[in-house]
Amino acid sequence: MKRSFINVLLSLLLFTNAALAADPLPSWNDTAPKRAIVAFVEQVTRDGSPDFVPVPERIATFDNDGTLWAEQPIYFQFLFAIDRVKTLAAQHPEWKTKEPFASLLKGDMKRVLAGGEHAMLDIVMSTHAGMTTQAFEKIVTDWIATEKHPKTGWLLTEMVYQPMLELLAYLRANGFKTFIVSGGGIEFMRPWTEKVYGIPPEQVVGSSIKTKYEVRDGKPVIARLPELNFIDDKAGKPVGIHQHIGRRPIIAGGNSDGDFEMLEWTTAGTGLRFGLIIHHTDNKREWAYDRDSHIGRLDRGLDEGPRRGWTIVNMRDDWRIIFPFEKK
Amino acid sequence: MKRSFINVLLSLLLFTNAALAADPLPSWNDTAPKRAIVAFVEQVTRDGSPDFVPVPERIATFDNDGTLWAEQPIYFQFLFAIDRVKTLAAQHPEWKTKEPFASLLKGDMKRVLAGGEHAMLDIVMSTHAGMTTQAFEKIVTDWIATEKHPKTGWLLTEMVYQPMLELLAYLRANGFKTFIVSGGGIEFMRPWTEKVYGIPPEQVVGSSIKTKYEVRDGKPVIARLPELNFIDDKAGKPVGIHQHIGRRPIIAGGNSDGDFEMLEWTTAGTGLRFGLIIHHTDNKREWAYDRDSHIGRLDRGLDEGPRRGWTIVNMRDDWRIIFPFEKK
Repeated sequence: MKRSFINVLLSLLLFTNAALAADPLPSWNDTAPKRAIVAFVEQVTRDGSPDFVPVPERIATFDNDGTLWAEQPIYFQFLFAIDRVKTLAAQHPEWKTKEPFASLLKGDMKRVLAGGEHAMLDIVMSTHAGMTTQAFEKIVTDWIATEKHPKTGWLLTEMVYQPMLELLAYLRANGFKTFIVSGGGIEFMRPWTEKVYGIPPEQVVGSSIKTKYEVRDGKPVIARLPELNFIDDKAGKPVGIHQHIGRRPIIAGGNSDGDFEMLEWTTAGTGLRFGLIIHHTDNKREWAYDRDSHIGRLDRGLDEGPRRGWTIVNMRDDWRIIFPFEKK
Repeated sequence: MKRSFINVLLSLLLFTNAALAADPLPSWNDTAPKRAIVAFVEQVTRDGSPDFVPVPERIATFDNDGTLWAEQPIYFQFLFAIDRVKTLAAQHPEWKTKEPFASLLKGDMKRVLAGGEHAMLDIVMSTHAGMTTQAFEKIVTDWIATEKHPKTGWLLTEMVYQPMLELLAYLRANGFKTFIVSGGGIEFMRPWTEKVYGIPPEQVVGSSIKTKYEVRDGKPVIARLPELNFIDDKAGKPVGIHQHIGRRPIIAGGNSDGDFEMLEWTTAGTGLRFGLIIHHTDNKREWAYDRDSHIGRLDRGLDEGPRRGWTIVNMRDDWRIIFPFEKK
């Protein structure tokens, strides 16, 4: 064995020791949530611990909108849909007089929203279906590469929560497999989650439309159809988890009542479990909203979470840094 | 640094070198398929190779019935269903006169099969639905632990192909993520694939029935409903791959025309790809069947496979050992 190789091994070892000594969650204040997370991870990973969980069963699931990245003033996927309607309008002259497109093109969002679920579905289907999966992936990739937040001007992919990036990395360093389980479109997230969160496409669970395999001029494609396949929200989240993962998580995190059933399912399992709720309480650095919000409404979780043993993060007090750009 | 630690590092290194030198596919004869597989893996994993594929994109998908384990004289999941009908018959006195159950209970399989798809669906739904996911998992786990093959007397989980176990391990040792993509029931496979193949539940894609989350007496459960959700066969396989994995495999293996579209989709991707077909040609050690078989019919794959560049394994000539018990 050559000396240089031993040196490489030595530096790797020293690096590992240094990493172990460093705080894995530097953007979390030293308050109850951080302490509870670290205690949980130590209890389930320490050899000989009564709560030890083997590596393959260390499944962690997190909501995306409002949990890993911001969701105000409107879900970012809806910004995408609005943008697509504007881009596609030239090919759809009929939209000038057809709702909800006419109002959307005039910028009258109030009237668009008054159309309710039916209007939303029209907008989603006309912008998310009718192309191949490869074409859609490219549209999303191109859009997300440059799209900026309407209020802060930062890239949407910079509107992610630094403490949650640290939590994901900390869990993975401890043998956890991290998954996204979001009400958002699975194909809207997959093109960028690996780069932004370190979560590969096969670990993203979300809502979906139906697709169809076909061979066009000798070239196989998967076509996106204007038909709902699965809504990964509320009671749909445990179902989505079961379909995709087939194993109950031991830690789950969310921020709205849409995540209630995911946390309920996770924490009802045997052995030590962890339920995490991000409560948006910081109207200076982020936004403050909960029970009365149309987006990310958190009501039942606030009432029942504490007595179910779930940890509630108060963003204002528990997070030293919220967005990565605050460090710059 | 302590000397003992350096010793551990040294032995790890020596072990790695030894492992690299050993034949990773000892149950494969040194014929064209083995050479093609090894050449492919080296080309996509060697640093600086023009065909290099980054680790996260090394996705490998394999059919199960007839590809990883045997499927004769009948799909093993159908043995399970027959067994369940017999077990449940006491609770269903009406089955004595109701088809296809009456014929099945009399052992008249010919008449059961004459009932076609509708009869099959009746049998599947009456045996696979109506319980929680946890209860079903336990039923499958208990059954598979002791169930023996009707012809060979070996456990069903011993009726797996040794060369394929070696291929799965070889791919994983080279940074591949291995997935099952089967027409079989996803929940029928997940309880045992990790132990038998080293493939965890979240890397199993299969056919499914619908499920529903509900809280019963304060305890959350996922109930299995008697309604089809997804058929992961033929053109459904690329769709299932896209839904679950969200990334196109670079290697796919199957044994029947039900795998044709999966291989087509896989090998139509850019860069180096590998399509593998297991041709059942050994009526002494296993079974010989292809174009005219009701189970595992392989017709189009035999015709088109070679000119599409797919590698066809002739089990009789290319596999030195078929089942692990041959080594005993």
